[in-house]
Amino acid sequence: MAEAFADYEQLAVLPAAVRDFVAGGSGAELTLDRNRAALDALTVTPRVLAGVESPDTTCTILGTPASYPIAVAPMAYQRLFHPEGELLLAAAAAKAGIPYVISTLSSVPLEKIAAVAPSWFQLYWLRDRSMVRSLIDRATESGCGALMVTVDVPVMGRRLRDVRNSFALPAEVVAANLVDKYTEAHSAAHGVSAVAAHTALAFDPTFSWRDLEWIRSMTEIPLAVKGILDSRDARAAVDAGADSVVVSNHGGRQFDGAPASIDALGSVIDALGNDYPVLLDSGIRGGTDVLKALALGADAVLVGRPLLWALAAGAPDEALTLLGRELRDAMLLAGCADLAAVAELVTGRN
Amino acid sequence: MAEAFADYEQLAVLPAAVRDFVAGGSGAELTLDRNRAALDALTVTPRVLAGVESPDTTCTILGTPASYPIAVAPMAYQRLFHPEGELLLAAAAAKAGIPYVISTLSSVPLEKIAAVAPSWFQLYWLRDRSMVRSLIDRATESGCGALMVTVDVPVMGRRLRDVRNSFALPAEVVAANLVDKYTEAHSAAHGVSAVAAHTALAFDPTFSWRDLEWIRSMTEIPLAVKGILDSRDARAAVDAGADSVVVSNHGGRQFDGAPASIDALGSVIDALGNDYPVLLDSGIRGGTDVLKALALGADAVLVGRPLLWALAAGAPDEALTLLGRELRDAMLLAGCADLAAVAELVTGRN
Amino acid sequence: MAEAFADYEQLAVLPAAVRDFVAGGSGAELTLDRNRAALDALTVTPRVLAGVESPDTTCTILGTPASYPIAVAPMAYQRLFHPEGELLLAAAAAKAGIPYVISTLSSVPLEKIAAVAPSWFQLYWLRDRSMVRSLIDRATESGCGALMVTVDVPVMGRRLRDVRNSFALPAEVVAANLVDKYTEAHSAAHGVSAVAAHTALAFDPTFSWRDLEWIRSMTEIPLAVKGILDSRDARAAVDAGADSVVVSNHGGRQFDGAPASIDALGSVIDALGNDYPVLLDSGIRGGTDVLKALALGADAVLVGRPLLWALAAGAPDEALTLLGRELRDAMLLAGCADLAAVAELVTGRN
Amino acid sequence: MAEAFADYEQLAVLPAAVRDFVAGGSGAELTLDRNRAALDALTVTPRVLAGVESPDTTCTILGTPASYPIAVAPMAYQRLFHPEGELLLAAAAAKAGIPYVISTLSSVPLEKIAAVAPSWFQLYWLRDRSMVRSLIDRATESGCGALMVTVDVPVMGRRLRDVRNSFALPAEVVAANLVDKYTEAHSAAHGVSAVAAHTALAFDPTFSWRDLEWIRSMTEIPLAVKGILDSRDARAAVDAGADSVVVSNHGGRQFDGAPASIDALGSVIDALGNDYPVLLDSGIRGGTDVLKALALGADAVLVGRPLLWALAAGAPDEALTLLGRELRDAMLLAGCADLAAVAELVTGRN
Repeated sequence: MAEAFADYEQLAVLPAAVRDFVAGGSGAELTLDRNRAALDALTVTPRVLAGVESPDTTCTILGTPASYPIAVAPMAYQRLFHPEGELLLAAAAAKAGIPYVISTLSSVPLEKIAAVAPSWFQLYWLRDRSMVRSLIDRATESGCGALMVTVDVPVMGRRLRDVRNSFALPAEVVAANLVDKYTEAHSAAHGVSAVAAHTALAFDPTFSWRDLEWIRSMTEIPLAVKGILDSRDARAAVDAGADSVVVSNHGGRQFDGAPASIDALGSVIDALGNDYPVLLDSGIRGGTDVLKALALGADAVLVGRPLLWALAAGAPDEALTLLGRELRDAMLLAGCADLAAVAELVTGRN
Repeated sequence: MAEAFADYEQLAVLPAAVRDFVAGGSGAELTLDRNRAALDALTVTPRVLAGVESPDTTCTILGTPASYPIAVAPMAYQRLFHPEGELLLAAAAAKAGIPYVISTLSSVPLEKIAAVAPSWFQLYWLRDRSMVRSLIDRATESGCGALMVTVDVPVMGRRLRDVRNSFALPAEVVAANLVDKYTEAHSAAHGVSAVAAHTALAFDPTFSWRDLEWIRSMTEIPLAVKGILDSRDARAAVDAGADSVVVSNHGGRQFDGAPASIDALGSVIDALGNDYPVLLDSGIRGGTDVLKALALGADAVLVGRPLLWALAAGAPDEALTLLGRELRDAMLLAGCADLAAVAELVTGRN
Repeated sequence: MAEAFADYEQLAVLPAAVRDFVAGGSGAELTLDRNRAALDALTVTPRVLAGVESPDTTCTILGTPASYPIAVAPMAYQRLFHPEGELLLAAAAAKAGIPYVISTLSSVPLEKIAAVAPSWFQLYWLRDRSMVRSLIDRATESGCGALMVTVDVPVMGRRLRDVRNSFALPAEVVAANLVDKYTEAHSAAHGVSAVAAHTALAFDPTFSWRDLEWIRSMTEIPLAVKGILDSRDARAAVDAGADSVVVSNHGGRQFDGAPASIDALGSVIDALGNDYPVLLDSGIRGGTDVLKALALGADAVLVGRPLLWALAAGAPDEALTLLGRELRDAMLLAGCADLAAVAELVTGRN
Repeated sequence: MAEAFADYEQLAVLPAAVRDFVAGGSGAELTLDRNRAALDALTVTPRVLAGVESPDTTCTILGTPASYPIAVAPMAYQRLFHPEGELLLAAAAAKAGIPYVISTLSSVPLEKIAAVAPSWFQLYWLRDRSMVRSLIDRATESGCGALMVTVDVPVMGRRLRDVRNSFALPAEVVAANLVDKYTEAHSAAHGVSAVAAHTALAFDPTFSWRDLEWIRSMTEIPLAVKGILDSRDARAAVDAGADSVVVSNHGGRQFDGAPASIDALGSVIDALGNDYPVLLDSGIRGGTDVLKALALGADAVLVGRPLLWALAAGAPDEALTLLGRELRDAMLLAGCADLAAVAELVTGRN
């Protein structure tokens, strides 16, 4: 049905407020727009005569073998988009051979999701520390291959679309991993969306480097720190025992003033060196974007919003097939036999 | 009512000519537009895991303790926007814990304003020198904590909106601090607005560095020089005894060709060193803008137009609460426990 | 009537084809647009506390004393815009105290124009060499204070608006200085405007540096070379005996691919040093633009199109008064007591 | 009829799908747009007083004498635009004195085209190697003056307009040089255009540097490698025995992320030195564009799309006359007596 991976945004049929919840960013949405503008302005100089019919896109990300250097980004409440929610998208990821990152705020219990796909678990730092511990234990026991700790949500960025829409989750969509006392917050109050109200109650803004070290001590599986833009923080994450960082501005949904993730990538890689795995998200909308991030030195990318659109269109499978095809095509057209060749491409601006 | 501090521009109900009087700039409004474009293009790289729930926004500006590094910019004739005018906005500032800068052209006598809020007094250089002296004395006696001398209005910039609207003040709005012989100028003539006509009669364009030294000798309270963009002038202001400079292009209302204030800030700070307090105005529309100015090295900002919109909407209190909240949110999201941390953030462009 | 010098474009009532003849540029009009974009993007950092009420705008340009560093650019066929044509505009220049540059293609004989204003004469290089000699002699004898040789019209740039409008001069508007055999070309043919057809017949594209030396030898009055953008040509003009160069892309009407005049100015000044007088035209639309050119090092500017609009509006007098006022205002607001101070201003881009 | 070479796009009357087939690019068409934006932003500083009436545009390209440094780009299926197709366009090239590049996918047999114009032959790397050999032999025997091997089409770029239009060739338009078994692919399937389907079957994506060496060994005529953007590939092409490279992103139709050809030109020339002939295509729409490419160091350009529009308008002759005139005009206005002078012009950006 879709001719390009980016088409699903048009194909998804959704209530306006749910559409806004996905599409929107925080504040004036400057960072949201910047993510796309920076990717569009980035050029990659293709090579020729690589002599390859079928580029090798396989890789290992955080210890997980993958068909593509792509993982499904952690995203909350996927039952907003399809009755099966996370299960349908995770199954598509499994079929495509890429990791699925389960959100702390998934609307299906993590164990059920981990059963259908090679998964990682995304962790928010909750005020209820026993719940944090429990989530780590449950993720490890369910066979999650990595723990991805989100560090850029001390509080939720002010997403004005949601505030203006008085956005609230429908009753049947809940944070299935959490049994918390904040369910009363699941309706919108004036000046704050219900999701933001819940977050404010549940999340602990005092999350610190010491807490990260504590998390590190809680599990043996690979640990990625998601939401890094400053190279000093990248170094600190490594010092705290992280195995990887995800360069991310949370898709323009947190600090509205942040640089585009793709523009922050270089300084992080410079600080960490080439041997340390660096992932990126925010703004990836197709195979060429994936290739651009890899050409700048990322080891893999997380893809978010377009997969929610595809989920709403009932076609996450088709979408991931299309994305994989777009990446292979981009590699072929850029003369790259494998991902190592992508990293050797010359990049520029405009 | 408002969901963002910038929203008051839409919420204010005002006659078109008054709206233009506030919103407009001089000439082709290139500098007016540049102020916003430069702030929007500025990026600040957030930090993570600061471990702070409630950032400390307190500071001392020009000797005045403040809850935020923000002061209400000096703005003329606030009874245009609300019957109580300056008194209502000053009370909101007092409640918010930030300094209110009384304009020479306030439409309520300065003593009354100083009685309701911790105030500074803004001074224009008038042809009638005895009136200048009297204003300084009155400001000091009323307890104003600082004197802010405006140096970028030798004449008023040509604000074409006002000229085209033949803008004149209503009879009940007057320059309450001045008892002058220029009241006949309070109606518009062809090719000049009434406000500009009055300014041309009352202000002395020969204002010089020697005059500034004379002002310095007239009072012991802190002296800030407002309207500096060139680093040579910043040095000269210090040499003339100023305690602070305000980097400002008068909100794009004076020389239409000036750089954005935010783009001029760096060279001024470079010239003065980090120990000298530097303020900034022109274009600040929300908490993220405040943080951007501070990240570039400003010690505080003045906020103008949005507070007139809020005054017209009858909600200056709510507006300042929202602005404070936006700054705290921005600091939290940027991982800053206090203002010193903001000054350590990395900045960029686009 | 007009509130800004740039307003006359709206105030002029003209047939569409005449309007296009003035407003248009060559080719895709990239250079035309670039002239304005570059001036708008240029910033000048104002100074303060200059202590001056009335800036001194007087200067001497090419030996001619002038009230402002401005001359009326040479422009053809001014009777298209007003029955009195050149005489009315020249009288306005005389009244304003600035030089008027008579075009080779003026629609009133040069002697009559020189009688009403301090004038310079603009020379095209014609195939009929005796006519060139005669024009130089007539200009000198009429008391023209300088000779301005246009070097950027070996052929006329292809102005597509004129071609598409089959633009032709009305019968009563002729090149009054020329008695030539090309009058039959004064009607449009397919694919070429009548003006271009006439130019192709009358002008000599083989114009060379040796010819310029010959011109230099023909007269003692100051010689300016108009249409220089490359610094190597600026040096060559000086070597050929020119007293001044005019940095110009002919208002975007010749080579459509040229840089903005204002962007070419710096390299020309660098090549010639500060002691050599450099003029500029192309894109000047108000007093702030004049100040910008001077801040970049120009000694004076030529102003063209806006004065034709003002002529069509019957108000060249008022227009020059307004332009002078805008320049004085800009100097006051930029803290400049005189033109030397303008040259010390800091410039930037956006 | 047309007043500018770029006008033919408006003058061509074509079915929407055929128009899209020509106008479109791959993916999001970022590279397509970038080609034009980069040429428009490029400035060339004109010289003056060159003393030349008629610039010398003659040159020798790949051993072929030419009236202009221009060749007709290889373009498939020209009978889509005119019943005579390639024959009419080639005849126009012959008349204009410029080389015509016959496409592997021409809709008229190459021998017939080579009979009407000085031609070069463009070669795709086909899975059927005997057909490749046969094409090289036929081209050489027909007197083609050069072989231009396209290296940037391992697979066809995904041209979404064609996919969305289910674009297929009409029955009477075929790849006349090929007698292949893939004619069944000449109708569109879901998600792929018929042209792309055919290409996928016929072209060999494993095309490598060794294959290029083999091609080199097959013929003595000059060999140009078309589709180079990376300077390392330019060096490799020379090492493989190529006589020239064509800097090209295939008009924005292959890798959508590539830099503008004009922006890639400099690094290729730097790598090869000035003595090695470098051609350029992608985005050339008029004589000024040709001059810009030459000013940056290209030896000649290929012109594509505008000639298909002109062919559809039945006026390729007139179009090439106009293009030649535009180049001569541009050289005159830029003060260039010959192509060597063009190469000495100063270039800039915006």
